Amino acid sequence: MRTIWVINPNTTEAMTATIEQCARAVIAPGTTVTGVTSEIGPASIESHYDEAMAVPGLLRAIARGEAEGVDGYVIACFGDPGLDAARELAAGPVLGIAEAAMHTASHLGRGFSVVTTLARTMGRAWDLANHYGMQRFCRGVHACDIPVLNLETDPDARKVITEACRDAIEEDGSDVVVLGCAGMASMCAPISAELGVPVVDGVTAATLTVQSLITMGLGTSKRLEFAAPPPKDYTTGG
Amino acid sequence: MRTIWVINPNTTEAMTATIEQCARAVIAPGTTVTGVTSEIGPASIESHYDEAMAVPGLLRAIARGEAEGVDGYVIACFGDPGLDAARELAAGPVLGIAEAAMHTASHLGRGFSVVTTLARTMGRAWDLANHYGMQRFCRGVHACDIPVLNLETDPDARKVITEACRDAIEEDGSDVVVLGCAGMASMCAPISAELGVPVVDGVTAATLTVQSLITMGLGTSKRLEFAAPPPKDYTTGG
Amino acid sequence: MRTIWVINPNTTEAMTATIEQCARAVIAPGTTVTGVTSEIGPASIESHYDEAMAVPGLLRAIARGEAEGVDGYVIACFGDPGLDAARELAAGPVLGIAEAAMHTASHLGRGFSVVTTLARTMGRAWDLANHYGMQRFCRGVHACDIPVLNLETDPDARKVITEACRDAIEEDGSDVVVLGCAGMASMCAPISAELGVPVVDGVTAATLTVQSLITMGLGTSKRLEFAAPPPKDYTTGG
Amino acid sequence: MRTIWVINPNTTEAMTATIEQCARAVIAPGTTVTGVTSEIGPASIESHYDEAMAVPGLLRAIARGEAEGVDGYVIACFGDPGLDAARELAAGPVLGIAEAAMHTASHLGRGFSVVTTLARTMGRAWDLANHYGMQRFCRGVHACDIPVLNLETDPDARKVITEACRDAIEEDGSDVVVLGCAGMASMCAPISAELGVPVVDGVTAATLTVQSLITMGLGTSKRLEFAAPPPKDYTTGG
Amino acid sequence: MRTIWVINPNTTEAMTATIEQCARAVIAPGTTVTGVTSEIGPASIESHYDEAMAVPGLLRAIARGEAEGVDGYVIACFGDPGLDAARELAAGPVLGIAEAAMHTASHLGRGFSVVTTLARTMGRAWDLANHYGMQRFCRGVHACDIPVLNLETDPDARKVITEACRDAIEEDGSDVVVLGCAGMASMCAPISAELGVPVVDGVTAATLTVQSLITMGLGTSKRLEFAAPPPKDYTTGG
Amino acid sequence: MRTIWVINPNTTEAMTATIEQCARAVIAPGTTVTGVTSEIGPASIESHYDEAMAVPGLLRAIARGEAEGVDGYVIACFGDPGLDAARELAAGPVLGIAEAAMHTASHLGRGFSVVTTLARTMGRAWDLANHYGMQRFCRGVHACDIPVLNLETDPDARKVITEACRDAIEEDGSDVVVLGCAGMASMCAPISAELGVPVVDGVTAATLTVQSLITMGLGTSKRLEFAAPPPKDYTTGG
Repeated sequence: MRTIWVINPNTTEAMTATIEQCARAVIAPGTTVTGVTSEIGPASIESHYDEAMAVPGLLRAIARGEAEGVDGYVIACFGDPGLDAARELAAGPVLGIAEAAMHTASHLGRGFSVVTTLARTMGRAWDLANHYGMQRFCRGVHACDIPVLNLETDPDARKVITEACRDAIEEDGSDVVVLGCAGMASMCAPISAELGVPVVDGVTAATLTVQSLITMGLGTSKRLEFAAPPPKDYTTGG
Repeated sequence: MRTIWVINPNTTEAMTATIEQCARAVIAPGTTVTGVTSEIGPASIESHYDEAMAVPGLLRAIARGEAEGVDGYVIACFGDPGLDAARELAAGPVLGIAEAAMHTASHLGRGFSVVTTLARTMGRAWDLANHYGMQRFCRGVHACDIPVLNLETDPDARKVITEACRDAIEEDGSDVVVLGCAGMASMCAPISAELGVPVVDGVTAATLTVQSLITMGLGTSKRLEFAAPPPKDYTTGG
Repeated sequence: MRTIWVINPNTTEAMTATIEQCARAVIAPGTTVTGVTSEIGPASIESHYDEAMAVPGLLRAIARGEAEGVDGYVIACFGDPGLDAARELAAGPVLGIAEAAMHTASHLGRGFSVVTTLARTMGRAWDLANHYGMQRFCRGVHACDIPVLNLETDPDARKVITEACRDAIEEDGSDVVVLGCAGMASMCAPISAELGVPVVDGVTAATLTVQSLITMGLGTSKRLEFAAPPPKDYTTGG
Repeated sequence: MRTIWVINPNTTEAMTATIEQCARAVIAPGTTVTGVTSEIGPASIESHYDEAMAVPGLLRAIARGEAEGVDGYVIACFGDPGLDAARELAAGPVLGIAEAAMHTASHLGRGFSVVTTLARTMGRAWDLANHYGMQRFCRGVHACDIPVLNLETDPDARKVITEACRDAIEEDGSDVVVLGCAGMASMCAPISAELGVPVVDGVTAATLTVQSLITMGLGTSKRLEFAAPPPKDYTTGG
Repeated sequence: MRTIWVINPNTTEAMTATIEQCARAVIAPGTTVTGVTSEIGPASIESHYDEAMAVPGLLRAIARGEAEGVDGYVIACFGDPGLDAARELAAGPVLGIAEAAMHTASHLGRGFSVVTTLARTMGRAWDLANHYGMQRFCRGVHACDIPVLNLETDPDARKVITEACRDAIEEDGSDVVVLGCAGMASMCAPISAELGVPVVDGVTAATLTVQSLITMGLGTSKRLEFAAPPPKDYTTGG
Repeated sequence: MRTIWVINPNTTEAMTATIEQCARAVIAPGTTVTGVTSEIGPASIESHYDEAMAVPGLLRAIARGEAEGVDGYVIACFGDPGLDAARELAAGPVLGIAEAAMHTASHLGRGFSVVTTLARTMGRAWDLANHYGMQRFCRGVHACDIPVLNLETDPDARKVITEACRDAIEEDGSDVVVLGCAGMASMCAPISAELGVPVVDGVTAATLTVQSLITMGLGTSKRLEFAAPPPKDYTTGG
């Protein structure tokens, strides 16, 4: 039995539960998916500051996973925080959900629109699109202006996001939608049904990509840049 | 039970058998993989001309698959011939093996080297890297100068290819290898073991990507460019 | 006397006649231009599928031209189908009309707008702009929503296309127009007169470029990628 | 009197002293430069993991600086860790030393070579070059294979680095050198004298850039992405 | 005492006075800034032709400065005319104001909008953004349609420009403004105050950048391309 | 009878004679080609300074041509000096020889190598490749280290250049050569014969491109950027 950890790098356990459920819904027999909540960091990630402060907790979770023999990891925040560092720590594959969602969307059409939460996170989405070589496919990044933690409580959330997606594909001339937050993972199917275009959620996409990599026996190359970090003295905060 | 067809767009059945075997080795329960040999076209694909002449046979196979309710397709030639047209025909997802291999390799390190068969096909590999946004990760394309149909018969093939891979990662400063021909699919594991870096085969990568897309209920967007082609009068050759 | 074949890769002879007429109007003494209609394939090219299915007929025409000692070729469809394969077959130069039109337009201003037929073909135009390095000059691709075969029969065609061109240069801030279909070749002069900007037709641009290359004694390099394709067993369709 | 903090995001105070000295040597009257050592994090930064773990300490230092009314900041590590987050926290300008060095070098010639410490950090330097739009000027990134903390103790360090610079400009055809580590700040002048090309150190470049921005009354835009991060519950590590 | 010449490459002395005043307002003790008016060329620069005709006068000024031992130069026209040639002539650093403004703006936010004078100069601004690697940050170039020489006489100039800036940041989703003409140098502060975003003037930015380079002992590399031009026979105009 | 002026922007008449001869050898009946020597400027162009100083003489020649009703122009220096300004002045088309050569070469193979005169001009060739969108095709720029004015007098020139071309295509993996100086125009045929790859000369390529544009009735768009320059007071040098 292989094990994948889907790590929620914010500390909100309700969100982890949703994420875990979405990931489990797609996994094949022979693999276990566990949602893991970061133990230190912000309650939600909506700024570069939040993202930076979430990374140590995320890395601690991965270090724990390595000790337990976990086979692969998903970083379940659309900013893909700490991805390069996590790849140094882990023996197996690690995927970010923005990475997985964008790559997946590129297989499905001419170009995709990203619909994310707050407008201030749009820049990060563009940076990631560039970093992954997906700028050619990323036709627009749009905000629905719903804070991450309201995604589940705001009764209008799905409707607002659906409309944002509809506007996005019109404005961008795109034919695929990427949902830009782990907290939107459960909205894929209904939005796709309503809009008639593929809608990609990064949590499921990343979980399945990690599963595929494990199946092929592939993990991060340890040849040079992503080899285990050299041992070092660390001063911990007081 | 879901069905994926892995279509060999050349007419050499022995090659289809190898491809099918590699694809089957990684598939999850609940999905059937069938290797399909194109009925018209060249015995192997080693030029733009071969590629162009292979496409009608490939598209005929996909049309047949659609009639039989096939859920997704892999185009098992590293030039990804006919991919856009195939996406118009098919309701479900279609992946090329270069596409899948390059995307997969981008998750595993800083940059990959492609090792392909004849030097004249290197340009096509670069074109595809650009087309998929993978030029950032593709650090070099190298030829081993073994014709496609000799890959299984030449007793030195694996050794020559292994050395070409070793030289490529040194020269390119890369940390991942992509094998640039469907006929090399079975060589991944031994080459990876010998060189100590991840080695990606497109046949397995594409098969697993298609499997994942089917699991997520995702196929090519039919919103605009990849909608079913408009009906048209065709004059067939005499 | 040198000979250029302008090949219409669809099977509609009326369209070939228009194309031939446009090409002949610009050719210099000492060169003959002949319009050639593909013998197999679709009646018009409006999808990736049509394009793929048109290529074998196009290549057969080029093979015939080589046997007859033709000096150069134009592929008269704005998707430039089969261009790389044609270059392998031909000893002399081969140009696509999108290629020629985009390069020509880049000499005339800051940036051009492409006005093509159906919206589903816009993606292909962008792919070609990228492939030829012309994305810097290509400011927009626009559809007039007139099917190829209606270009000559629809009495409003020229008016609709003129308005599409006018909107395109306004919206894109461009200063040159490229007409994105061989069937529009005869509309250049009146649209240019009406809009006051250069309007480029690919058929004439490609014919003159081929004529120039022949004059300079230049043809496709046979050094590596575009050498004659290696002989191969072909299975023909039943 | 204006104040600039040059923050060493590793915890090695000896390195801070060198950095502070270099920064002070160039500052104009009317501005005070203070070297600040991060209180939590790694002793040196030589991996993505080190970098990620250094960020919270860096951000804590900036928060403290804001409370004290500091006018601008330099992040004195060539990976520019935490730059985006720091820009959210600070009212005034924040520069990374890789950012400042690369921009500075772009004013001085056709292209620069970066010479950094360990080979595993080369990828990060390339990422930053891309991020800052400097890939056009960055002709190569080279490692001297001296660990950060040995830069001051290894008696051969300067000689080894000088030779690495000499090889780099030859190999890259470059005409400017960028030193890729804050710990090399004091080596600029002698290496430049020996090689006869401009050699750029990021610590002085960033300090002077921050000084210039303060003089012009310019700081990070607070319009959208880099506005102060929204308040949030944080769980701190145990 | 170090000396910087800020050269106005048009022949309008009133404009030089404004430029000099702006540059002097930011310079540190120990450096003198002198505004220099080109002695030959156009009264203002609003076309490629004007720019080309301004360059010999600019270069003559630089040659004179070299004879007088000037330490560095600013080319105070947003087209950065003659920059490469000036770098060959000068021993010390030379900056263009578009170059300096764009680099400076890139340190302050996600992306900037340029607001320039006449629409016909927008293409040049884009060319420079590409040339400096700043296309990633340059989100839009906008014209206020006020001729250069009316900037000081038109009583509505500042209001019109302010509105153009406001529209630009809305339309582009940018968070920083770059003023695209040396004649706008004095408008930075009030426009920034009104719009609440950083507004960058190239004259001050370039002056401070040159001052910083001189402080660091850095000038244009003389290794290859920018070495002193080889002596040559020149035929002067009659 | 249409007239094309091929302007040599240096003042060396012997070079104009060679250029004119090459241009005349390819022109079609109905067009006259005249070589024109610039009356002011440097004897040869081997630096940015030379190039800048050559532009006013070039523009004066074009103004004279316009007065005489010339139909199109070639700027016969591989740095394409003054091209944008010339396009503002001329009613008909204007081509640079680097522009024409690079575009022409892109039709002939996978990628070209440029072989130019002095190493210090290599940067300009790269800038032009980027400017024209040809960086994708330009695989390398190489210097033969023969000064422009020695090309005709140095008895070894052709041999040295031939060897530089041979090395370039090997090193770059290219399949086409571009000769990077108007003074090499007559060497195309023998070098191509010796190396077996297409060798492109910009003088003939540009002349034929201008001839084609005239035939199609196409000239520079006067819609915005390249409209006639606004009238202006000019101070002429004393």
